[in-house]
Amino acid sequence: MTRVAILGATGYSALELLKILLRHPAVEIAVLTSRQEDHPPIAKVHPVLTGRLNLACEDLTPAEVAKRAECVFACLPHGVTTEAVPQLLAGGARVIDLSADYRLNDGATYAQWYGQPHGDPTHLAEAVYGLPEFFAAKIKDARLIANPGCYPTTTMLALGPLLKAGLIESHGIIVDAKSGISGAGRTAKLPFHYPECNESVSAYNVGHHRHTPEIEQILGRLTGRDAEVIFTPHLIPMDRGILSTTYSIPTKPVTQAQLLDTLRAFYEGKPFVQVVDHLPATKDTSGTNYCHVTARVVRDRVVTISVLDNLIKGAAGAAVQNFNHMYGHPETTALA
Amino acid sequence: MTRVAILGATGYSALELLKILLRHPAVEIAVLTSRQEDHPPIAKVHPVLTGRLNLACEDLTPAEVAKRAECVFACLPHGVTTEAVPQLLAGGARVIDLSADYRLNDGATYAQWYGQPHGDPTHLAEAVYGLPEFFAAKIKDARLIANPGCYPTTTMLALGPLLKAGLIESHGIIVDAKSGISGAGRTAKLPFHYPECNESVSAYNVGHHRHTPEIEQILGRLTGRDAEVIFTPHLIPMDRGILSTTYSIPTKPVTQAQLLDTLRAFYEGKPFVQVVDHLPATKDTSGTNYCHVTARVVRDRVVTISVLDNLIKGAAGAAVQNFNHMYGHPETTALA
Amino acid sequence: MTRVAILGATGYSALELLKILLRHPAVEIAVLTSRQEDHPPIAKVHPVLTGRLNLACEDLTPAEVAKRAECVFACLPHGVTTEAVPQLLAGGARVIDLSADYRLNDGATYAQWYGQPHGDPTHLAEAVYGLPEFFAAKIKDARLIANPGCYPTTTMLALGPLLKAGLIESHGIIVDAKSGISGAGRTAKLPFHYPECNESVSAYNVGHHRHTPEIEQILGRLTGRDAEVIFTPHLIPMDRGILSTTYSIPTKPVTQAQLLDTLRAFYEGKPFVQVVDHLPATKDTSGTNYCHVTARVVRDRVVTISVLDNLIKGAAGAAVQNFNHMYGHPETTALA
Amino acid sequence: MTRVAILGATGYSALELLKILLRHPAVEIAVLTSRQEDHPPIAKVHPVLTGRLNLACEDLTPAEVAKRAECVFACLPHGVTTEAVPQLLAGGARVIDLSADYRLNDGATYAQWYGQPHGDPTHLAEAVYGLPEFFAAKIKDARLIANPGCYPTTTMLALGPLLKAGLIESHGIIVDAKSGISGAGRTAKLPFHYPECNESVSAYNVGHHRHTPEIEQILGRLTGRDAEVIFTPHLIPMDRGILSTTYSIPTKPVTQAQLLDTLRAFYEGKPFVQVVDHLPATKDTSGTNYCHVTARVVRDRVVTISVLDNLIKGAAGAAVQNFNHMYGHPETTALA
Repeated sequence: MTRVAILGATGYSALELLKILLRHPAVEIAVLTSRQEDHPPIAKVHPVLTGRLNLACEDLTPAEVAKRAECVFACLPHGVTTEAVPQLLAGGARVIDLSADYRLNDGATYAQWYGQPHGDPTHLAEAVYGLPEFFAAKIKDARLIANPGCYPTTTMLALGPLLKAGLIESHGIIVDAKSGISGAGRTAKLPFHYPECNESVSAYNVGHHRHTPEIEQILGRLTGRDAEVIFTPHLIPMDRGILSTTYSIPTKPVTQAQLLDTLRAFYEGKPFVQVVDHLPATKDTSGTNYCHVTARVVRDRVVTISVLDNLIKGAAGAAVQNFNHMYGHPETTALA
Repeated sequence: MTRVAILGATGYSALELLKILLRHPAVEIAVLTSRQEDHPPIAKVHPVLTGRLNLACEDLTPAEVAKRAECVFACLPHGVTTEAVPQLLAGGARVIDLSADYRLNDGATYAQWYGQPHGDPTHLAEAVYGLPEFFAAKIKDARLIANPGCYPTTTMLALGPLLKAGLIESHGIIVDAKSGISGAGRTAKLPFHYPECNESVSAYNVGHHRHTPEIEQILGRLTGRDAEVIFTPHLIPMDRGILSTTYSIPTKPVTQAQLLDTLRAFYEGKPFVQVVDHLPATKDTSGTNYCHVTARVVRDRVVTISVLDNLIKGAAGAAVQNFNHMYGHPETTALA
Repeated sequence: MTRVAILGATGYSALELLKILLRHPAVEIAVLTSRQEDHPPIAKVHPVLTGRLNLACEDLTPAEVAKRAECVFACLPHGVTTEAVPQLLAGGARVIDLSADYRLNDGATYAQWYGQPHGDPTHLAEAVYGLPEFFAAKIKDARLIANPGCYPTTTMLALGPLLKAGLIESHGIIVDAKSGISGAGRTAKLPFHYPECNESVSAYNVGHHRHTPEIEQILGRLTGRDAEVIFTPHLIPMDRGILSTTYSIPTKPVTQAQLLDTLRAFYEGKPFVQVVDHLPATKDTSGTNYCHVTARVVRDRVVTISVLDNLIKGAAGAAVQNFNHMYGHPETTALA
Repeated sequence: MTRVAILGATGYSALELLKILLRHPAVEIAVLTSRQEDHPPIAKVHPVLTGRLNLACEDLTPAEVAKRAECVFACLPHGVTTEAVPQLLAGGARVIDLSADYRLNDGATYAQWYGQPHGDPTHLAEAVYGLPEFFAAKIKDARLIANPGCYPTTTMLALGPLLKAGLIESHGIIVDAKSGISGAGRTAKLPFHYPECNESVSAYNVGHHRHTPEIEQILGRLTGRDAEVIFTPHLIPMDRGILSTTYSIPTKPVTQAQLLDTLRAFYEGKPFVQVVDHLPATKDTSGTNYCHVTARVVRDRVVTISVLDNLIKGAAGAAVQNFNHMYGHPETTALA
C-alpha cells in the first residue's frame, strides 16, 4: 500500500482523483489538504463522497505532508505548487503535479506566459512530462511528474504520432479546441455562472492561452524541430469533455488510411488511446481514462479529431496512470 | 411617449424589460441606473443589446430619476427598493417595483420572512399587487405596483380561479415548483457555478422560501379565508422557466372537465393565460408573457400544472403588462 | 467466476451494467443479446466500450443463453421478458430482470396498468422484489429477481423506514418526482429530441404512471396496510438522476430530528443509503450506486427528499447489488 | 398588408418565422401548409403559439397557395422545394426559399453535393442569394430568394469584407464551426436523442458538409477568384446558436485594428452586423437577428469569430429581412 496525499483537495480534478484512488487496491488515501480554516470533512466539500471517504481537509506544511505520505498529488494553483515541491521532495516524497508549474522545461517561457518568474527553477529541469504514451520510460523512475494540461494531452495524442512519423509539418498547425466548463475550475465567476454560459459557445484567450507553449514544446521535443501552433480554445456548455480539431499540412500527399495506420501502429499496446474510424464524440470517453482519435484528409489538409474527459485522461486519470508507472502497477489499475 | 427609468439595470429581469420596452411604441427608455462606478454602457453589461440601445448606466439619486422619468421600473434588491420609493413618488413618478418590498401588505409578515423591518411602511398599504388577471381595476390608477414574485404568479394563476369558485380547500395546499437558474439572479455564487448545478436537480429553502407568505396572502385575499401552503421550490438545470405542480383537496367531488371549464371561464378575455388540455412544458411559454395552465383529478386530489417564463410573465413581462394597464395601452402592447 | 449474460444489451441500463460488471472481479461477461440482425460489436453500439469489451451482440434463444450463462440480466422491454424467463429458469439460469414484468405480485394489477395480461403468471409469485435495503434475506436465494423501478426505489428509500416506524400515514402520500431523460430509454422520439426537451421541464403521465402501483404495493407490504400514492413524474433536462419529493401526513406530531434518526437507524450498516442533514442534489449521487435521503417537517407535513442515479441505484447498480447478494459477494463489490 | 404563406410550417425555422411575422405590422399570415393528413392547428404543432395564431396547417398544391398568398416562405426539405417553386412563380407569388435548393447557381455542383440532379434548373439562375449585407440591391426586385444556409451566413459575414478588401487569401481558409442542435431539424433521430448528444461535442460531415460549396461560391463571387474552404461543423449541446471560427492567410502583414476597421467600414449602416472588440458568445445574439463579429491576428494568421442565432439571422430572421427589402419596409421591421 502506498500512502498518498492530495494537496488542494477541494477542486474538480482532486475529486476525480479521489474517486479513482478509492478504487485503487494499492493506495491508501492518507492526507488531504486545503487552506480552508475550518478543516471540513471531504464529504462536506464533495457530497458525492458521503459514506465513501471519512477524512477531513487539513492545513499542513509540505514537510508535514511528506512525513505522512509517500506520493503527493498536487492539485494546487500554478505558482503555488513551486512553493511546496522543494520541501516535499526534500522530505522524501515523490510528486505528481497537476498544475502547470513544471510542464515547461524553460523558466523564461514560463515567465513569459505565466507573467511571473518560475518559483523553483532547480527542479524544473528534473521534472518529467507525464504523458505515458510518449514518455513512459522516464516516468517510471521520476521523483517529480508534470502532469500534462488537458488541451495539450488531447492535441498531442492526435498529432504526436503523425509528427514523429514525418507525415505532417510542425509549423502552421491550427488547433481548434472545445472544452466543457469544469476546465475553468471550481471558483464561482460571472462567465461560468450558469445562465451566462449555458446555451452558449464562445472562444476565449485567443492567441494567449497558456497551453500554447506547452503544446509547442512537446511537439518540438518529439520531432527535434520547432513547432508552431495557432491555438483557439472554446467553452462548451457541458460539464466535461474536450474535443480538439487540428488542421495541419502534410509533408507529402497522404491518405486517411495511412494516417489511421500510423496512429494504430503507434498506439499498439497503449490501451488508453483508441484509434477509431468514425468521428468520435466527447461522450464516448466521458468518465473514462480513454482518448479516442481519428484523422481525415480534407482537400490538402490533415484533419484530426481527438476526444477525452478533461478531468480524467486530461487530469486525474493521467495522474493515476503516471502513479501506476511509477509504482510498478499495471497501467490500467483503477482506471479500466 | 412615456419616459421610463430602470433602476438596477444590470440583472436578468432588467435585461428582459429592456428587450420588451425597445419594442414598445409608446415608451422612451430615458434612464438606466446601477451602482457600478464606471458607468458602463448598457451594451457592455448586456452584450445582446449591442447596436440596439445606446445608453450608459448612471448612479443617480431617486430624486434625479424622478425628474427625468415618469414611470420607474425598480429592479433593485429587496430592502433597497424601500429606500428609493418614497422619493420617487414624492418626485411625481409612478413606480413598478419588481422586488419583494411591497408585495406583503403587512410589515410584520415582511419582518418575519425577510429578517428586517420594512423600510417604508407608509407606502406599503398603498401598493397594488400587480397581477392583472386578478387586480386589473386597481392597477389602472396605482402609483405604486408590487410586481408579483415568479413562483406566486405561476401558482396563483392555477389555483386562484379554483379557490374563488370554491372548488378547492384553502388549507393543505402543496406547491411543488421547479425553476430555471436565472431565478437565482446574476451574482456568481458556487451553487450556480455551471459544473455545480448543471446535470442536477435539487430542492432549496424547503419550508423557508419567502414566496410562501406571498402565495398565502394572495390566495387568502381571493377567498377571504386564511390559506396555508406547503411550498417546495426546486432548481432545474435550464436558464429560464417555472413549472408549478400543486396538489389540493377538492371541497366536493370534482371532474377534470369542471376544473378546466372553471379556469377557461375565468380567463375568458385574459389573453396571457391559456388553459390547455395537455400537460404543458415550460418551453411552451419560453420567451413569452404567456402562462399555460391545466388541471387533473388524481385519486381524491386536484392537481394543477402551470408554466411560464420566470423572467417574462414572472417578472419583466408582467411589469410591462402592468405598465400597459396604468398608461391606457392595450394589454398586449409589446408583449404579443 | 460467474458467467453472466445481458439480454437487450443496447440500452442505457445495459451499458451501465456492462461498465460495472467490467470492474467486477468475479464476473465473466459471457453473452450479449440484441435483436439487431447484423450482430454488431458492442463497442459499435456503445462507443464508450471501445477497447474495453470485445464482444458482439447475438440473437439467441433463451435456452441457448441459459447454456452459456449462469446468471442473466434481462434488460428487455416489459412484456418481452416474460417470454424469455420460463426457458431461462428451466435451463438453470438465475435471472435478474430490470424490466417491470415481475415487480407486481399480482397479475390483475399488471394487466390493469400495463394493458395486457401477464405473460408468465407461474413465476410471478416466485419473483423477489430486488430492493436489498428491505428484502436482502429473500434476495440471497432467489432464482428470479424483479429489479425495482427507478422511481419506486427513490421513493421507497425515503418513505419505507418512516412508514415501518409508524411515523407517517400510508394514505394521502404525494410523490412529486423529477427524472433525467435517460429514464425514457434510448429510442429516438420527438418528446426526447434534444431541442424539444432541452431547456424545459414538464410533467407526464400524471395519474397514470405505471410506477404508481409498484410504489403502493411495496409500501403496503412494509406496513401491512393499503397504501395510496398520488404520483407525478416530471422530465428534467439532464441525462440522469432522480429526485423524489414526498409529502405525507404524520401519524402524530414529529420533529425533523426524529425523522432523520429513524432513517439513520434503519440504514445503519446499509452502505448505499446515506441520510444527510442538508438538501441533497441528484449530482451528489451521479455515477454512483448511492441514494442520499433527508427529511423535513413543513407545517403539519413530513417532506422527504431523496436522490439517486436512475441508471445505477435506480437500475444497473441495484442489479449488481442484487447479484452480489445472490452470489455471496460483499454488497459493495464493483459498486464502491 | 402582404398575405404570406409558409410551406412546411412544422419545423423550427418555420416556428421562428411565425413568431417574427406575428409582430410584423404589414404582414397577414394567410396560409400554412404541411403534409400531415389531419390538418393540425398550428398551436398543436407549436404549443408556444397557443392563443397567438389560430390557423390550421393545410395540404395544398403550390397553385392553390399562390392564389391565397403574395409571398411564400418555403421551409421545405431540399429537393422538395424545386417541385413547388415553378408553380408558385407561375401563380404570381414571390418566393423566399429557406432550403438549399436555389443557393448554388450551378446545377452540376448541386448534383455533386446533394446527390441528385437539380429539380428546377430554369429558375436556378434567376434566384438571388439572400444575404442582404452583400446583395441588397438584387434582393429588392427578386422573385425568388435563396435564403442562405446558417453556416455560410455566419462565415461570410466575417470573411466577406476581409476578402473584398484584399486582406486575406481566398485559398487555404479553414472554417471550424459550432452549431446548436436545432440546426439538425425537428425529426427525431438517435444522434439528436437528448441523452446521446447532451453533455457532448462532436464533429460531423467532416469534408463533406453541403454548406462547403455554398461558402466557396459566395466567397468566390465577392472576389472573382476561386475560393477554397476546409469546413468542419461541430454539434454543440445547446438549442440554438452558431459560432464560426475561421483561420486565413493574410495577403500581407495586417493588424487587428486594420481588420476591425475594415469590418466596421463595411457594416456601416448595416444594423444587423455588429463588429465588436471582445470575443462574442452565441448567447449575445440568441433570439435576435444580429450577428456579432470580431477578428484577431494570431502569429501569421487572421482569426475571425462570428456568432448568430442559427434559426433567426441564420434562417427565419434573414428571410424576413429579405422580405422587408423586397416589399419596401425598413430593414429592421419586426426584427429589432
